Order: sequence, then C-alpha cells, then structure tokens
Amino acid sequence: MNDIDAVDNVRAMHWREDRLDLLDQRRLPHEEIWLSCRTAAEVAAAIRAMVVRGAPAIGIAAAYGMALAVRAGEDLGAAASALGQARPTAVNLHWALERVSQVAGGVSAAERFRALAAEARAIHAEDEAANRRMGRLGAARLGPPGAVLTHCNTGALATGGFGTALGVVRTGWAQGVVTEVFADETRPWLQGSRLTAWELQRERIPVRVLCEGAAPALLASGLVRWVVVGADRVAANGDVINKIGTYGLAVAARRHGVGFMVVAPMSTLDPAMPSGAGVTIEERPADEVLAWDGHRVAPAGVGAWNPVFDMTPAELVDVLVTERGVVHRPDAAGIARLDEASAVDTAGAAP
Amino acid sequence: MNDIDAVDNVRAMHWREDRLDLLDQRRLPHEEIWLSCRTAAEVAAAIRAMVVRGAPAIGIAAAYGMALAVRAGEDLGAAASALGQARPTAVNLHWALERVSQVAGGVSAAERFRALAAEARAIHAEDEAANRRMGRLGAARLGPPGAVLTHCNTGALATGGFGTALGVVRTGWAQGVVTEVFADETRPWLQGSRLTAWELQRERIPVRVLCEGAAPALLASGLVRWVVVGADRVAANGDVINKIGTYGLAVAARRHGVGFMVVAPMSTLDPAMPSGAGVTIEERPADEVLAWDGHRVAPAGVGAWNPVFDMTPAELVDVLVTERGVVHRPDAAGIARLDEASAVDTAGAAP
Repeated sequence: MNDIDAVDNVRAMHWREDRLDLLDQRRLPHEEIWLSCRTAAEVAAAIRAMVVRGAPAIGIAAAYGMALAVRAGEDLGAAASALGQARPTAVNLHWALERVSQVAGGVSAAERFRALAAEARAIHAEDEAANRRMGRLGAARLGPPGAVLTHCNTGALATGGFGTALGVVRTGWAQGVVTEVFADETRPWLQGSRLTAWELQRERIPVRVLCEGAAPALLASGLVRWVVVGADRVAANGDVINKIGTYGLAVAARRHGVGFMVVAPMSTLDPAMPSGAGVTIEERPADEVLAWDGHRVAPAGVGAWNPVFDMTPAELVDVLVTERGVVHRPDAAGIARLDEASAVDTAGAAP
Repeated sequence: MNDIDAVDNVRAMHWREDRLDLLDQRRLPHEEIWLSCRTAAEVAAAIRAMVVRGAPAIGIAAAYGMALAVRAGEDLGAAASALGQARPTAVNLHWALERVSQVAGGVSAAERFRALAAEARAIHAEDEAANRRMGRLGAARLGPPGAVLTHCNTGALATGGFGTALGVVRTGWAQGVVTEVFADETRPWLQGSRLTAWELQRERIPVRVLCEGAAPALLASGLVRWVVVGADRVAANGDVINKIGTYGLAVAARRHGVGFMVVAPMSTLDPAMPSGAGVTIEERPADEVLAWDGHRVAPAGVGAWNPVFDMTPAELVDVLVTERGVVHRPDAAGIARLDEASAVDTAGAAP
C-alpha cells in the first residue's frame, strides 16, 4: 500500500451486477446504511432524495441505473428521462446517460445488459482514474505546505472514488503539502460537517469545521493558503457552477491573495454553455433551510431563498484542474486547449 | 398608534423593580418563556448562556443586574466583574457597567438601589429612543424602495426595543422604502431564522431566510439594494466588529454595488480602540458548530473553528448610522465629528 492508497478508504457505491448498493449519505456520519437499487426508478429516486450526491457520483449511479433498467425490463427512454430529471443542474448526469444510451443503441437486446453494465463500470473506473490524476496535478500546484479550505463534499462520497477537490487534498496530505483541512459545514445539507469531516477523519487527515459565515474571516487571517473546491458544471468560458457558497469563497480568496482552485473532471465541462450566466440554478424546498432533521427552526409561515448552486466567474479562478491538465486563470481559449491534448498544463505559478 | 408603533410589538426584557424578566431567546421561536433574574449573578449567567443577547440588550440587562446586586446585598465590584466577563467582546456591556458604577459611587447606601434602578431605566429608555432616531436617519438613506439583506438579529430582541439595523428596517417598511427583508439564518446560533424571522413575522414584515453561503449570490442577483447590519463594537477608525459572517457580506456588497449600512448606537463606539485589528475576537465552543439542538452533526473527534465575530474594515462601510447622526464612508475624522455635535449628518448619497 503506497501513501495514496493509505488515504483512499471510502466508497459511495458498489455495483453488484443485479443491483447497485448505495451508501445512504443522508444517514452519515452516524450510521452506515447501504441501500440496494434494482431498477432505474429506484436509482432515480435515490438521486432525487440525495441518498447519493455529488455530480460525478450521480452520473455513475445513473449509468448503472440504465443497466438495471435493461435487466428489469424498464423502457430505456423513460428510464433515461427519469434519471436525467432527478437533479437538473449536474451536467455529468446527462453526459453519462448519453454515453450509455449510445451503447444501448448499438447492441442487440440480448447483449444490452452486459454492454450497459460494462459501459457503466468503465465510466466508474475512468472517474476514479481521473480523480487520481487530478489529485497529482492539483497537489503539484499547491506550493509550500499549508492549510486548505474546502466546501461541500467532493470526496470519494461524491465521485466514483478518491474525489475531485478532496482528491487533491488526499494527494497533498500524502505528499506533505496539505497540513490541515478547514471544511465549510455547507448549509443547508451540511455535507461539510457530515460527509467531508467523516471522510477525512477516516483517512486520518486533520479537519476543522467552520460555518460559511466564518470563511471570509478565515481567509483574511492568513491561516489558509488555498481554497480547493469541485464543480457541478464548468461553462465554455471557465465560469464555475458549484454548491451554493462557493462564489463568496472565491471573492474573499481573491481579496486576500489566497489561491482558488477548481477541480473538475472533463465530464463536468459543458462546451455548449457559453457562460455561467446561462445555467439554470436549481432551487430546492424552503424547508431544507427552515427545518433541521424534521424539526422546524424558523417560525411557521416564513419563506426561504434556497438556491442549490451559485456561479463563480472564471476571472476569480486561479487554477482549473482536469484529468487532461491544468489551466491557469481559465478562459475560453484555455479550456478549448484541454480538448486538443491528453495532458495540457498551461504555465502559471501558485498565486 | 402611528405607523412606527404598528411595527414595534416585541420586547426582550421587562424590569419589575424586584427582578428582571428576560425572554429566553434560546427557546424562540417555538416557546415564549420568561426567566426572572433576582441577582447580578443570575443576570450574568443569563448573558453567558445567551438567554439575552445582542450588544445593547446585554448592556441594559447588566445595568439592571447592578441594581439587583444592590438589592440582593451582593458585592458591587464582584457583580460588575461577573457581568463584565459574561461576554468579552461587546463594548456596550462595559460602557453600561461603568455608567451605573459611577452612579453607585455617588450616592449613599440607602439611596443606592433606587439610584441604580433609575440609571438602568434611563439607559434602557435612551437606547429605545436612540433606536427610533437611528431608524429615521437610516431609512432616510435607503433611497428608492427595495429589498434589504440583514444578518443575525439586531431587533427589539437585541436591544432595549425597536432595534438597530432592524429599527431601520422597521422604519423603512413603515415608510414604504423597504419592500422585503432577506435574513441570513446566521450560523451557528441561527439568530436569523429563529429570532429575526420571528420578530419580523410579528410585525407582518415579509421575510425570507437564506443560508450565509447564498448571500453573495443574492447580492450578485440584483434582488437587494442594501445590506443593513448592526455592530458589537466600532473602532475609532470606523472598523466594525460584528457577528461572524458580516465581513463576507461587506466584501460581496462592495463588489456588486449594493450599499452596506452599519447601524450602531454611540455606546457601541470604542474611541479607545484605534482599529478593529486590536479587538480580541471571542471564540466559543466547537460544539456550537458541530452539534444541532443537542444532536451531533459532525462525527465525534472532529474539531471546529468558531469565532463569534469578524472585522469589517471601515473602507467597506458605505454608511454608519448612530443616534448622533450619519457618517458616509466612515473614517477616524468622520467618527470624531459625532462626538462634537448632537446631530451630525455628513453629506453623501445612496451608493
């Protein structure tokens, strides 16, 4: 077991050929309950209910869901539609569904389950490999040892394994360039305190949780060298759609000369979307903000504003890390170059 | 009842001569429980436990606590010390204790209770009057009708009545220049969703709660014209110490051309503190972040970073409202002028 394997002990799902087992992330960190999905409808429901979350993990689960649809005799078009509508913002979901749907169209009915399951496993394995590679590329950009701030959960739980931003953290910790992690609790779902803290504790990486409101003061304090986040979608010009709260981190990081790194696999890039301004931001129910674990916090009758994502303009991103390479201060030209090479790494030092 | 009285229906405390009744703000919005304090030690404990919170309300409660100390035969020096240490950051607390202690030194033992109770009632009444005046001065600066974003609770619950930033909101709503309030939920204590939402709902002022992480996106959206906040302490140069999360609002507001207004009575000003950098920021227990209503959110063994306040540099403040007048883009000279006049109002339009 090398240094990297020592910090890679968490998985969000296991494919069992006749079913997809999902770790119920709503129950973490207190209980580790695995839910078995045997149909695409069950996978779609699990995605909608956030049993599984994180853009890459959703895409992989949906791909397995399509294989289950074949096995269960579900209509493939209806299955793809149900899975695609489970979470509207993540582009990986549509990318993965498109990829397995193309495979489905090219094989006989008798071969379809085997072919779709193989394609889903390939998507899963490629995601893990991409994360390992992004971990190396991102960690190489961190410079001298220091603490990092991260947001939401971008770890093994959010991906096929290892994680995007947390993959950089894992690699950076193994290499000694990440000394500590500050994790935004990430309201309203608290992915930071529930999932990221749990995942890092499993890997014995030191973590301190903070409220999002404290993050600008943390960035002003000099305690942190980098903000490292994932992405749910990256537009063609480099604008980043990510978990609500990301944008404020980028604004404060720039003000204080703290680096802002976005770690996103190529499947997160959306070349058809010219800028982040065009992306529809999912709003979720008010009760996610107004209640906690079924108990009301705010008085009855009060409303909420609950967008799930926000948009960070490309100008605030210092480094975009993909499995194809790193783009410094991303723009449309820098992102377009990623498509042209298998390992682009544009010049640029740590901020 | 005029328009202003119609939106002034909440009080945090009632002085009953033999006791101070405090509305237990930890139980809001679900229960309205009043706790009776009969000694300074009980008042100090209530402040420490956040039964009563908000810098002006703490100062008033401490003043009443000194009167109760006389009545209960407590040592006045020890009482002042216990009250002063209950919350280290709020300057109003020390200001109020100093004021009643001076009165105590100037009267006979026989007169002391009556004199201290009268002084505490005067501090209380002056605070209410100051808030009414700040409400008028601040609302006059808001310009065309629009929505405002506020943080924490700065209302009747945080003061002797009417509120500081929420006093401006109350007045602005009565005058038709505030159309809606967005209230940060304000982790970790959730004063926004628990207290501000409750208080505004009582006054029938429309309010929507949001997570702090969503605030920069809200400010980018154009939905809000002003951020209106209170202060726990204002340094001589205009730097503002306020509830954690304030600084990030100021940074994002400036970026998007949204006005940033700080509403603080003169008792909040600390001329002895040259800048905000010198203020010790209170840190509270990690469990406030890591647990929720007694239930753990994060896994056991994980740490937290839990500063209660942050520092907003004066350069990010568009308008400072005090009962002595309004300072546009405050600096040391502008704040010093407040001491020279009973109603300064430096020039400057809405941003």
